Order: sequence, then C-alpha cells, then structure tokens
Amino acid sequence: MAQGPNQTTRISRRSALSALAALPILPAFLRTPAFAQAAETQAADPLPSWNDSAAKQAIIAFVHETTNRSSPRFVPPAERIATFDQDGTLWAEQPIYTQVVYCLDRVPAVVARRPELRTAEPFKTVLSGNREAIAKLSMKELEEILAATLTGMTVDEFSAEAKAWLETARHPRWDRPYTELTYQPMLEVLRYLRANEYKTYIVTGGGQDFVRTYAERVYGIPPEQVVGSAGGTSYGYGPDGRPVLTKEPKLLLNDDNAGKPEGIHLMIGRRPYAAFGNSIGDRQMLEYTRAGEGARLAMLVLHDDAKREYAYGPALGLPDTKVGTFTQALYDEARSKGWTVISMKDDWKEIFPGSVGRALK
Amino acid sequence: MAQGPNQTTRISRRSALSALAALPILPAFLRTPAFAQAAETQAADPLPSWNDSAAKQAIIAFVHETTNRSSPRFVPPAERIATFDQDGTLWAEQPIYTQVVYCLDRVPAVVARRPELRTAEPFKTVLSGNREAIAKLSMKELEEILAATLTGMTVDEFSAEAKAWLETARHPRWDRPYTELTYQPMLEVLRYLRANEYKTYIVTGGGQDFVRTYAERVYGIPPEQVVGSAGGTSYGYGPDGRPVLTKEPKLLLNDDNAGKPEGIHLMIGRRPYAAFGNSIGDRQMLEYTRAGEGARLAMLVLHDDAKREYAYGPALGLPDTKVGTFTQALYDEARSKGWTVISMKDDWKEIFPGSVGRALK
Repeated sequence: MAQGPNQTTRISRRSALSALAALPILPAFLRTPAFAQAAETQAADPLPSWNDSAAKQAIIAFVHETTNRSSPRFVPPAERIATFDQDGTLWAEQPIYTQVVYCLDRVPAVVARRPELRTAEPFKTVLSGNREAIAKLSMKELEEILAATLTGMTVDEFSAEAKAWLETARHPRWDRPYTELTYQPMLEVLRYLRANEYKTYIVTGGGQDFVRTYAERVYGIPPEQVVGSAGGTSYGYGPDGRPVLTKEPKLLLNDDNAGKPEGIHLMIGRRPYAAFGNSIGDRQMLEYTRAGEGARLAMLVLHDDAKREYAYGPALGLPDTKVGTFTQALYDEARSKGWTVISMKDDWKEIFPGSVGRALK
Repeated sequence: MAQGPNQTTRISRRSALSALAALPILPAFLRTPAFAQAAETQAADPLPSWNDSAAKQAIIAFVHETTNRSSPRFVPPAERIATFDQDGTLWAEQPIYTQVVYCLDRVPAVVARRPELRTAEPFKTVLSGNREAIAKLSMKELEEILAATLTGMTVDEFSAEAKAWLETARHPRWDRPYTELTYQPMLEVLRYLRANEYKTYIVTGGGQDFVRTYAERVYGIPPEQVVGSAGGTSYGYGPDGRPVLTKEPKLLLNDDNAGKPEGIHLMIGRRPYAAFGNSIGDRQMLEYTRAGEGARLAMLVLHDDAKREYAYGPALGLPDTKVGTFTQALYDEARSKGWTVISMKDDWKEIFPGSVGRALK
C-alpha cells in the first residue's frame, strides 16, 4: 500500500489569510534578474543547487533522453514544451498567494474611486484591518474583492499598478520583495531546459495578466509563455480616441485543476513533455503530460522544509492551509504513476537565489 | 476627400456559398513545405515576388528601422511580434472560407453518428446537395453546422479528421489542395520577418484548432503561435482511463473584429509591431497595432486581381461576397491613418508558390 512521508492525518485548518496584516510596505532596491545569474556554472553541472539525488537524476536523464539525436525517445526542438506551476513551484506561496495580497492591498485605491464600497462588505472588513475577520472571508467574498481590484481598468493601467506594487511590497516573514523569493533550484531547471531548446511556460492558477508583469524579469519567461487564469477584455477607445483594452469581470479560463490541461490546449496547443507542480491543482496537468507518448517528466515539489521555507499539507500530516494543498491521495498517485516528488529539505542545497539565499540563512 | 480605387458602389450581393458544390474530392500528393523554399534568395532580395513598389519599400523600411541597433525606433528582439490574418491575407478565401467547406463536408459523417439529424434542418439541406438551398443558409444555421462538426470529439480526433480532409480536398477553381493556395509574397514576408527575429503569429477569425493542424507545415508557424476563434474543451478520461480533452460547444474567443486585439492580449500579451489583414474583420487589429509607440506597420491586402486570383469587395465597386469584406470605409481609414494597401495586381509578381504558381499561369 502506498504510504506518504507521514501517516498522521489532518489537523485543524489554518486560514490562508492569517498572516496578511503583517505586510510592511518598504521601498525596493534595484535587482539583477535571478534567472540570469551563474550561467557559467551550467557546463559543469546544470543543477548546482540540487543534491545528487533521484530527483536531480530524473531531470538530467529526461533531458538526455529527449535531446540526444540517437535516443529512441528523441523529441524535435519544436515540440519541446515544459510547463511550470508558479505558486509553490517557482516561488513561495505561503502564508498567502502573492496575488491575493495584491488584491487586498488594492482595496483602499478601489474604494477611493468608488466610495459606495466603503461601507459595503466585504470591502468594509478589508478596510478595517481586522486580521481575524479578513482571514474568515468566504471564497465568494474573496472573488468579489478580486473582481473589484483586477477589472475595470485598462490592461496598461493594471500592468503599471501591479509593477508599482511589486516594487514596494514585502513578504511578511523575510521582509523581501516577493520576486526575490523564487526557488534557486527551479530557476536552474528553467535555464537548463531552455539551454536544451525547451520552451518554458508558466501554467498558473494565478492571474495571467498579473504574472506577465514580472515573469520575464524574474524567470526569463516572456508574456506569451505565461498561461494563467484569464478574464476577458473589451476593445474600445479612450478619451483621446486611442484604442484601449479594458479588463472585464468575465472569467474565460480558470487555469487550475482540469483548467490547466484545458488552458495548455487553448494557449499552447501541444502536450508538454515535462510538467512541474506542487499541489492538487496541478494533478490534471501532470496526468495529461504523462499520458503522451515517449519520455514525459512529471514532478511535484513537496514543502517539507519548515526551517528554510515552510512545511505544510496533509501528505505530511500537517494542516491543509488551503494554499498549495498536497494531499495523501496526490502523493499516492505520484508514487503509483512514476511521478517524482521533490523534497525541498533533502533534494535542494539552496532554496532562494544568490545573495538572498545567503542573507536568509 | 479620400477615394477608393473605384468609386462605383455596391451591386447586388452574391452568396459566399454559391461555389460550394463544385468541390471534388481527389487524393493529394506529398508536398514540400512552401515556406521552406527559396531561402537562398533572401540575402539578395528578401521579397523577390514583390514588385519594387511602395508596399515592398514600406516592409523593408520597417524592418530596417526596428532591427538596426542605431535606429531611434529599434525594437528589442523579445518584443518583435508580427500578426497575420489568414483567410485572404495568407491564402485564398474565395469562393468560401476553407473551414466552412470542411464543416459542410463533415456533415455526412456527423449524421452517420447521430442519425436523428438526417431529417433535421439545416443538416437535411446540406445532405440534399442542393447548391442554391445551401447557399441560402442563415448565419444561425451555419453556426449549428459548425457546432455539430467542430465539437463533441476529442482534440486528437478532430486534428486527425481535419488533416485527413486537407489531404484530399481540392479548391474548386484550381483543383489544388487548399494548402497550396498560399500567397508566395506573404510567405516571403513571414520568412523575412522571422529572419529578423520577429515572432510571426496567425490571428484568424477561423478556428484555432483547425488552423493549427497545418500552420507549421504550410507557414512555418507553430501551434502556439496560432490565435484563432476558440471553443472550450473539457478534461476527462477515455474508456481506457487515459486523459482526453473533448471539444465543447462553448465559444471562448470570437477572434474577429474587436476579438482580434482581445485575442492578441489573451494569447500573446504584447502589442504587435506589425499587422497584416485584408478585411473589416482586421480593422481593430490594425488600429491596435498602430496605436503603439515607435514604428508600427499596418498593411491590408486588396483583392483586385480577377485574372490571377479574385477581385472583390465594395472598395472596388464590386459585390460584397461576405467573405473578406473590404469596404470603402476601411479603404478611407487606411489612407487617413497611413496604413499600406497592397494591390495584388500591381504589387505582386507572383500569387502562388513555385511550381503551383507556374502550373496555374
């Protein structure tokens, strides 16, 4: 019988929103893109932040098998697609998804424009600053906040607002910009795959427009290779007669769970050869990837490193924080189907990039 | 006052479907991809099938201006996006859009699977073979046929069916596979832009899944660079338990008119630097492209060559066939906004590629 790393089962639930109010707003420093660092070490060891374990060997074997012309499982460069979940797979997702923090932080600006919301729920609760009350917001109330803060402006206005926020917002635990809390070992995987002519895509349940504002700088992934939950836009003309695209509260793609393979078909039109995730929201993407012919790599990041990052999820016998849920069933499916589970504690030498990683030790 | 090439105005309407029943079904020959031909001529003249007119000069000047590092309007390679309408811009669209022919041809197979449709309209009319009656089908009836023939199967089944059809179907006038009736001068533009690090995209009102089945072979454009009208899919499991994506009758993106810039934002996330079209359905894409900063190229193909291809559209004082409508208003907007109108008759030395073009002379 398949067993998880810890058989203890679910404890009481902890809210995903509980650490929200701890977010200070401080100026950010200019940063060099983490994905561009240490390219010179590639030749010797493409994955220097990985311990020499089965997970690292699986990645290297996959790349050799699919890119060596004499391999029976050779994949032509045009078909080399690799997809990556973002939250919890490429960067930290605890204690709350970064984009949700953004939306909550935007509430005062939205209320300033639409004063009638000041006394209306759930906006009133967010403005109160009452952490406990905010943590108890229902999914429906959270969706109202997302709709109010992510739609109604032009795509250019949204992009400018999100970029400005990312410059100043800090993670409550490390007091660092969110964009510095990417995982160094995964940045190495992105680089390694691209060096072997793989096109790397983000396939995220997060907002496509939000992630596109920093994915190129942070991960080296251009906007056209970011697939995410996406709302419709409407084409029209601004006061000066110039064309504008306005973000509408109409969901076109809910890019999570079954929505991930559906989004991959919509936006890419090819089945990936490699897929990386960390939660039940990634299950269908990994299944879909592995169902293709030839060598297909499916990997799940397990957050089991409370000291250097976080440890969470029912598969570890820890609470389901509702952020990046890794269940026992997912762990069992991974084992039975030959997916590789990455232990952050055991497989990764470093968690965060370069100077950030050193400063946080 | 802006004037069209011909001031005679609208004559009686001709149905887009009238030539439908003339389609013979013959086996196809193996073909070399037209986009791969004549690469060696690029160095000397990147656009050898173009006469040395203003249209050709506009394309060459745009490429020089955006790719020369010392140009004030230099565009970094990552941002070089060019979008192309397909029907009437990259290949022939008369007498009826190729995909509509496909859908009508698929009706017998759909009825064989769903016999209750045999006596139901509009399927009964299509099966009758009565050209006049088929030509009179309403847009709503045509949409019913599209839904029945483009949805309900897995994406892999659809792709196989469409590929098989393209192998055998022939254009009624030239008795050639549709995929050979691409425009040689436009294939040269695609190649020329790609040689200068532009990413070339198709942005079509046609079905995204349909165009993706041949775009790589025919235009050198991979599936992930085809943006088209797109329906939803649903993720599920086949009889063998393997994951499948099934095409659903739910329209996510109507990629025509305002839907083109909306689709570009959804699928690419960057504003194009160059856009090519041939009808009112491309107007908003060209406006959106030109509204960006720096050098932006907007071009419209005018079908004014009845001898070598077709001449049609109100801007020429010819009937609106409802296929690729080029109105006087579009012509006037092009003139007033500095878009370039390409005359197929005057600007193009050749219409179709290599041996096809020679055989058709």
